[in-house]
Amino acid sequence: MSWTITRQDLLDLAYGAALLGSGGGGDPYIGRLMAEAALDRGQTVTVWDLDEVPDDGLVIATAMMGAPTVMVEKLPAGTEGVSALRALERHLGREAIATIPMECGGLNSTLPLVIAAEAGIPVLDADGMGRAFPELQMETFGVFGVSGSPMAIANEHGDVAMVMARDNWTMEWLARGICVRMGGAAMIAEYSMTGAVARRVSIPGTLRLGIRLGAAAREARRRHTDPLESLVEALGTASYRGPRLLFEGKVEDVFRQTTEGFVKGHARIRAHGSPDVMRLSFQNEHLIAEIDGELLAVVPDLICVLETDSAEPITTESLRYGQRVTVVSISPPEIMRTPEALDVFGPAAFGLNVSYVPSCQG
Amino acid sequence: MSWTITRQDLLDLAYGAALLGSGGGGDPYIGRLMAEAALDRGQTVTVWDLDEVPDDGLVIATAMMGAPTVMVEKLPAGTEGVSALRALERHLGREAIATIPMECGGLNSTLPLVIAAEAGIPVLDADGMGRAFPELQMETFGVFGVSGSPMAIANEHGDVAMVMARDNWTMEWLARGICVRMGGAAMIAEYSMTGAVARRVSIPGTLRLGIRLGAAAREARRRHTDPLESLVEALGTASYRGPRLLFEGKVEDVFRQTTEGFVKGHARIRAHGSPDVMRLSFQNEHLIAEIDGELLAVVPDLICVLETDSAEPITTESLRYGQRVTVVSISPPEIMRTPEALDVFGPAAFGLNVSYVPSCQG
Repeated sequence: MSWTITRQDLLDLAYGAALLGSGGGGDPYIGRLMAEAALDRGQTVTVWDLDEVPDDGLVIATAMMGAPTVMVEKLPAGTEGVSALRALERHLGREAIATIPMECGGLNSTLPLVIAAEAGIPVLDADGMGRAFPELQMETFGVFGVSGSPMAIANEHGDVAMVMARDNWTMEWLARGICVRMGGAAMIAEYSMTGAVARRVSIPGTLRLGIRLGAAAREARRRHTDPLESLVEALGTASYRGPRLLFEGKVEDVFRQTTEGFVKGHARIRAHGSPDVMRLSFQNEHLIAEIDGELLAVVPDLICVLETDSAEPITTESLRYGQRVTVVSISPPEIMRTPEALDVFGPAAFGLNVSYVPSCQG
Repeated sequence: MSWTITRQDLLDLAYGAALLGSGGGGDPYIGRLMAEAALDRGQTVTVWDLDEVPDDGLVIATAMMGAPTVMVEKLPAGTEGVSALRALERHLGREAIATIPMECGGLNSTLPLVIAAEAGIPVLDADGMGRAFPELQMETFGVFGVSGSPMAIANEHGDVAMVMARDNWTMEWLARGICVRMGGAAMIAEYSMTGAVARRVSIPGTLRLGIRLGAAAREARRRHTDPLESLVEALGTASYRGPRLLFEGKVEDVFRQTTEGFVKGHARIRAHGSPDVMRLSFQNEHLIAEIDGELLAVVPDLICVLETDSAEPITTESLRYGQRVTVVSISPPEIMRTPEALDVFGPAAFGLNVSYVPSCQG
């Protein structure tokens, strides 16, 4: 059933988006401010469930693309998302009936809401990653056969490029080059599809999930109960498993490099009163968590670093020495763990020589 | 008056294009083979003078973009030029009545002929550089106010991108990033304009000039006369001055790097029986010739390195130790030496801290 986003939804979504971002997707705080500004302007963000979109209506995915380290410094002007959407519509000769988030983590949980409000169309309660991933071919849309091309990419200066690539991997490769030359962050519109196709290839209900996760954490804080327990319940209703506590400790070292349009690096976290050291590797998002070479969790499982005191998720670009953190993992819905899905965003897709085993059972 | 290209034209043009390439524009030999293959297929290359194109007909510039070092290894499949042209036509919703070469040097003198033959349209006897330059904003089209955008860029795999940039410098910047990700060389279609505009912003007659230069060198070889003298006459009829003999010697050292989509470097040439050493710097094309810091010639003057024995031009990517060479310069038509033109492709545009003085008077 169609509904409209409230300010409380945005506050809660910022938390849920940070968690589902698995450390990436860009700082949700910025996305929240932009969505709040849209409400301040008197705009309305209408959300449709997947089953509300007409079979033959045109759905276009929107997002910000770039390294999260850049996104926190090079803020969107607010117009470039609609520029990208309109450029793609012009190319297709057809208007979108709704937009769908490319991913449901970080900044990209709320930016499609801003684009929807600006463009006067609804946003679908669904997405193409069920979390955040760093690359454009890593979308369930693509896993299930939708072409990401033609895609549009736009910056805050009014520059727009269109990419018509032979496959989604090449689309990512070419678009990343453009994104880097646009300064490391830009807005995109891609994976145009009909409503019927969107229903088949999306992860449903992830916008509501983000809000529910934020509300659960907020309630736990108010009641001084364990937020992880509340999150378990909220995640379970959307077929996710977890969060499972992996580690607690202090951030001892972070190596981070903004390179080739991504932020890549690793972090070491030392346990309190034990010699154990957890090593996290990331490419925008956390990819793998290990202790002494022993695998604790790996993509597509979500690995989330929370500030221990507040249970607030910490993005990979904000990770720094001295933070007291709790590392948890979340296993995504079954549809994201099929062999076809793992081919696209499993460990091997990131060059990791381990087999995927869900870290959370249930 | 409209005319058609013969095999002899192509042979002569390969020489003239190498000379006007100022060391760059890609190896004209490859362009000649591609144009000969078009004639072999029974296709016709029709050439229009600038005054033959209808005032309101759509003219689109075409070329290969990339580092000449890459162009000699990553040969065009032959279809990507028309792909780029068609993509731009689709975007504009209008078909081109003719194509115009972006530059009149190197490979790019003949590639538009191939595109014209494939697309079944004429090619104009004119271009937008009056020589070869390394960057897309360095076109007389742009100097006289034409927007390079929208532009299309296509590779041999069928990937196509469109760039709609705020200015021609940004178009170059974004397209170069795409070109690099397409492997360092790709075909482009850009600077769409009407016939009336094309007449105002182009360097006329440069296709005939290239052929005439080749014929002059061929005749001189046959008669065992000095080819430079024959070239002086051919150039003068098109308002160029030169060639002027700058230096003779042996290539002693070449430093060359393919970087950021260009080939950049410098060469040292030692005089025979004298301590003089000429230093040449290049970015795809030769930019400046100096002896002991004394300026001999600088862009937009053409600096051409000829094999001394044969008077055959040597491209920057073919320059190597031990070659016996004659270095000559050519000053371009007045229209390319105005303050507006020098802003775009004079010494300062290449970061050279010297003032432009034509090396050839006349």
